[in-house]
Amino acid sequence: MLQDMDLAAVYVSDAQYNRNIFFDTTPQAVRLYLLYNHWVPQVLLYVFITVDLFLAIFEEPALHEVSLWATMPVELLCLSVFTVRIVHYAKVIPRDKFWKDPKNICIIIILLLTLLDMIIYGALTASSLYAVRWSRVLRPLLLVNITEGRQLRRAFRSIRNALPQIFYVFLLFMFSLLMFSLMALKLFGKRGLTTIDERPYFTNYLDIVFDLYVLVTTANSPDVMMPAYNASNFFAVFFIVYILINTYIFMSVFLAVVYNNYKKYLKEEVRQLVRAKRHKMVRAFAVLQERREEGAEPAVSQACWNQLVRRVQPDISTAHRELLWSVSDDKNQGWIGKVAFVQLADLLNIQVITLKSRPHPLQNLLPTLYQSGPSRLLRRMVQHRGFVILYDLIILVNAVFIGLDETDPLIAYAEWVFLALYLLEILLKLYAFEPRAFFSRHNFWNWFDTIIVISALIATIINTMESLGRYTSRQILDIVFILRVLRLVRVVDSIKRFRIIINTLIKIGPTILTFGQLIIVVYYIFAMVGMELFKGKVQFSAADIGNLQRDCGNPLLKNTAFARLNYCKNNFNDVVSSFILLVELTVVNQWHVLTTGFTDVTHKSARIFFVLFHIVVVIIIINIFVAFVLEAFFMEYSVEKSDLQTSLEKKIEELELAVAQEQLEENLVDAMETSDNDLGTGQSAKKKHTLMFKIASKSKKQNTMFS
Amino acid sequence: MLQDMDLAAVYVSDAQYNRNIFFDTTPQAVRLYLLYNHWVPQVLLYVFITVDLFLAIFEEPALHEVSLWATMPVELLCLSVFTVRIVHYAKVIPRDKFWKDPKNICIIIILLLTLLDMIIYGALTASSLYAVRWSRVLRPLLLVNITEGRQLRRAFRSIRNALPQIFYVFLLFMFSLLMFSLMALKLFGKRGLTTIDERPYFTNYLDIVFDLYVLVTTANSPDVMMPAYNASNFFAVFFIVYILINTYIFMSVFLAVVYNNYKKYLKEEVRQLVRAKRHKMVRAFAVLQERREEGAEPAVSQACWNQLVRRVQPDISTAHRELLWSVSDDKNQGWIGKVAFVQLADLLNIQVITLKSRPHPLQNLLPTLYQSGPSRLLRRMVQHRGFVILYDLIILVNAVFIGLDETDPLIAYAEWVFLALYLLEILLKLYAFEPRAFFSRHNFWNWFDTIIVISALIATIINTMESLGRYTSRQILDIVFILRVLRLVRVVDSIKRFRIIINTLIKIGPTILTFGQLIIVVYYIFAMVGMELFKGKVQFSAADIGNLQRDCGNPLLKNTAFARLNYCKNNFNDVVSSFILLVELTVVNQWHVLTTGFTDVTHKSARIFFVLFHIVVVIIIINIFVAFVLEAFFMEYSVEKSDLQTSLEKKIEELELAVAQEQLEENLVDAMETSDNDLGTGQSAKKKHTLMFKIASKSKKQNTMFS
Repeated sequence: MLQDMDLAAVYVSDAQYNRNIFFDTTPQAVRLYLLYNHWVPQVLLYVFITVDLFLAIFEEPALHEVSLWATMPVELLCLSVFTVRIVHYAKVIPRDKFWKDPKNICIIIILLLTLLDMIIYGALTASSLYAVRWSRVLRPLLLVNITEGRQLRRAFRSIRNALPQIFYVFLLFMFSLLMFSLMALKLFGKRGLTTIDERPYFTNYLDIVFDLYVLVTTANSPDVMMPAYNASNFFAVFFIVYILINTYIFMSVFLAVVYNNYKKYLKEEVRQLVRAKRHKMVRAFAVLQERREEGAEPAVSQACWNQLVRRVQPDISTAHRELLWSVSDDKNQGWIGKVAFVQLADLLNIQVITLKSRPHPLQNLLPTLYQSGPSRLLRRMVQHRGFVILYDLIILVNAVFIGLDETDPLIAYAEWVFLALYLLEILLKLYAFEPRAFFSRHNFWNWFDTIIVISALIATIINTMESLGRYTSRQILDIVFILRVLRLVRVVDSIKRFRIIINTLIKIGPTILTFGQLIIVVYYIFAMVGMELFKGKVQFSAADIGNLQRDCGNPLLKNTAFARLNYCKNNFNDVVSSFILLVELTVVNQWHVLTTGFTDVTHKSARIFFVLFHIVVVIIIINIFVAFVLEAFFMEYSVEKSDLQTSLEKKIEELELAVAQEQLEENLVDAMETSDNDLGTGQSAKKKHTLMFKIASKSKKQNTMFS
Repeated sequence: MLQDMDLAAVYVSDAQYNRNIFFDTTPQAVRLYLLYNHWVPQVLLYVFITVDLFLAIFEEPALHEVSLWATMPVELLCLSVFTVRIVHYAKVIPRDKFWKDPKNICIIIILLLTLLDMIIYGALTASSLYAVRWSRVLRPLLLVNITEGRQLRRAFRSIRNALPQIFYVFLLFMFSLLMFSLMALKLFGKRGLTTIDERPYFTNYLDIVFDLYVLVTTANSPDVMMPAYNASNFFAVFFIVYILINTYIFMSVFLAVVYNNYKKYLKEEVRQLVRAKRHKMVRAFAVLQERREEGAEPAVSQACWNQLVRRVQPDISTAHRELLWSVSDDKNQGWIGKVAFVQLADLLNIQVITLKSRPHPLQNLLPTLYQSGPSRLLRRMVQHRGFVILYDLIILVNAVFIGLDETDPLIAYAEWVFLALYLLEILLKLYAFEPRAFFSRHNFWNWFDTIIVISALIATIINTMESLGRYTSRQILDIVFILRVLRLVRVVDSIKRFRIIINTLIKIGPTILTFGQLIIVVYYIFAMVGMELFKGKVQFSAADIGNLQRDCGNPLLKNTAFARLNYCKNNFNDVVSSFILLVELTVVNQWHVLTTGFTDVTHKSARIFFVLFHIVVVIIIINIFVAFVLEAFFMEYSVEKSDLQTSLEKKIEELELAVAQEQLEENLVDAMETSDNDLGTGQSAKKKHTLMFKIASKSKKQNTMFS
């Protein structure tokens, strides 16, 4: 029976978190599986993957070079952790399933190849031969292939599915590019025009193709057009038509194709997820079901259900659990059938905020003082709208003071005044509102405020102490500045319209996280390849900055735009520089200058590397990012509550436990205070309850789509 | 009765073309209204608006300066045409409706203000005083306010409705910009860093705001970051976070907001259009209806209906009309009720291609020769797939030859060979296929081919004659080159995947036209203001191109990036240069260099002009353009036929008149030929008919949305 409960709980939690693992159902395997899903090994795994990825900082070409014999053992440790994890996984699921799953094969191959590479590299380096750590390219693929990388795999799968369509549009785009280049060659090649560097203009076909490809990124507009435009007004028409077709229309078509395909395949994936979820819940039901009478429908009793929920989500409050039961067991029968049971995973996913209106701790400690006239007045003042406005004004004045010169002692003193004011605000609020409610998980801005103010206080104190000791650390001062400015951000929360936009942005957060992993995988691979191709070719030295004759340590770069614009630090000499350079290439501006710098020191064919990066990152991934954001916003605009949410809300209202939405919008803490204060007076039925519920997330739909 | 017919025809054609004019229903007014809607006055109106807009080329500051006493009479003529048009309109609709309509008031005000401005300007210029032709800003507004400018007004209305939402996002964006600038000031202001021009880096708050605004456009990336990045790796994080938030997230949010609002309001407008269309058709029905018996439903007889259709669309074929009737009169009763009648406007809008399979003219003239063995073989060869492949290969070889040096006599001869081959292709096709079918309206590529080849032939002959006379005109040669390259485009049509994409792009055509008008209105206004602000400040002279000490005729520009990059021709000295400059500013790259050039020669506050342009064109209009293209593509992907189209198609199939879709896709002319050839053999019922129908546009939905 206990084992049954374990199994059912595993099914429900798999359904809740959309895990799709076909584990063995033997009691032993289930226990192993529970361990596998425990947060500790999962976090450990991510820590070791991070360590593995960060090793690139210390490996040659390194930012901080560390001996090979220091990084190798760390990498071996990481590899062994990954091995333990995959062995654990192999024990959890049936053997045939394990070997059929490509992601497991991938991990094993990655581990073996890495080991092989380490041996070869170690041996070659020990005998002072030239060696390449080629297996580093495989490292980020671990992020994709571990069981927890579900969302990332989904994203990659969507991209792969969209590729054929993108490919055909790309071919057409290339055709257009080649046609325009041919036309440009014929129109401008024989006119003897020169660029501002006195080089012949548009005489080599392949160079024209490259120049016009760059024009699609707009990076060399209007420079590429100026020689022709200077020759005749009519030639501008050629470039305008080109930009209209290839930059505006084709790039929009790319966005359309990527967006459309991505949406289509994501929808299909979500549909499959929903099906799998239902399937798992049905299995859980099959494990727990009992027949109440002969011939009756199988059902699950409330006791059994309670036990299950406690096991799946131990931190859920009894009140919340009872609420969920009352939604499931509509007719108050004491047992539920299959249909009602299957909803459980979704019910658990609806975030219900349980608001306990507890009396303020001071009320218990010093009831007479806390309820005295002045104390009541103070609390009312803090809860007044004027208090918020007053502090918004203070923030604005503070902004002006920050803008002024902080070395002026008057301004420095003013800073202390502001700090004191902010601290006072937090203390007053803690006096007026119940502290645990003030710091509840959903009060983002209270947390934000407090952390910023406390950190600013600490940093300012350290800074002052240091300056008394006549030594000011720039780092601390920088942190103080950043914190001071961040404090101003709070003003946004006071304006309702802004709050809506910000909330949507915060909701995109998890999506951006998945997206961030995606981009890190791609960046890492390109950084590793780039480092092998270009390491040491461009050198940066701080002494060069002012030197007009600088050549970034490579005579080939003398008098090039790359050296002239002081881009020497944009190089592939270590992994950090590489990442920053890749960000610059993603932004695309001055793309041709950066690219030409690297082709100048190597070979023109190095362009392939950069064009490939542009296609993968800018044409595909950035478009997917835009599609992500668009989709998230459209969902916010057209949000519909699921049936389940509606019925849960109805239940909450029936039970008269709802917190009026408007009240909450105005000031969550306020509403609680009032209901707390009026606890004895019995003004309204609603306020008699010490427990109130509110549904947190309005757009479940989005969450299932993207997280 | 005739007058009734007139009135009904007007209602139907108004419904068909979505005209929303509440004209007087007196017979006289209806006749005036018919005249008002005639294509001749409409085309004339557009011609005069174009002339009015193009006057800017000749007015001071002019590209080709013409005396004021030459442009003024032309403008007066334009004004009088517009006045006649508006008076005509006033006669058509009831007086109270006329004065309530803001667009009429707008036109009258524009006309009066222009007249006033002309008088003042003429007087001031005659007395040699400084004068500004400020009313030129109003000219493009005529395009919006004339009755024919419906789509443009709809686009502007959508933008206006989206403005509040855009405004709030913009405010939040500005807040973020100001915060980051403040942080940048504090972080970098005191470090004594310098830019590559040796100027202090990030010390003035307003300059920082501007620099970071430019960074949102990505135009100064990575230059703006380099000094800080050279100082420390950590500072790169500041810029990366900034770009992520302000460039990627905020710009995507702008797109989302613009797209969402635009879509929403456009949908509402389309809904209203549909309602108005129904309303007009009901009125037309009310005019024509007759009661067949006492108590029976009112109806319209076939004779009456035929007369109406002939009047509304005189060019419709009898067969096509009969087809439409048979769709409307489902039960073959000889009359139709209101419901069936109301469909008429939509039915007329469905493009049905009537394919008449006529015998080839040569068959009539020389039947024995045309049907002889060799002739048959030749025709079969031309119709074979190999013929298409052969010519695709010829085109590819031609592409290589074009890339080679055309001064080589061998290449020049080869060009004649290719021309001959292309001519031969067209002649062969005309021999094999019926000429009128070959040049039917829907055979885009046949028209394209023929026009390109014939023009190339003419241009090449002119060019050769000129070169024999030892004088080669570059213009003619340029045209020859362009035509030669355009000929290669044909290859795209042979690949099915490409054809689908191209067809979608062609369908976006009308949308882009509306969009083009929108952008011309905005560009014209900015060009006029820009010309008044900056005319003559920057001078271009061809002699300056090679001069390294150039200052664009203004000492203030000496040693600036503007002069160094040879941007002197990017100025506001005439309307053509202004438009090209505005295109460059739309592309955004080097935006800061261009902008700084103009602030250097005037005042820093001139930045407002450029920032305003950026907000209006790049943030709002370009995003709408992208939304346009996205929407058009999504519709193509998820196209559903309307009920009406389905019933029309069913009817065509019932009557066995359909052309099999596959056959058509393969080769429209081919299919017709076959059915023509087999005319006597009676192989299948379908092929017995000499008339065949095909529904042209698959996506009516899109057309109503955007045209």
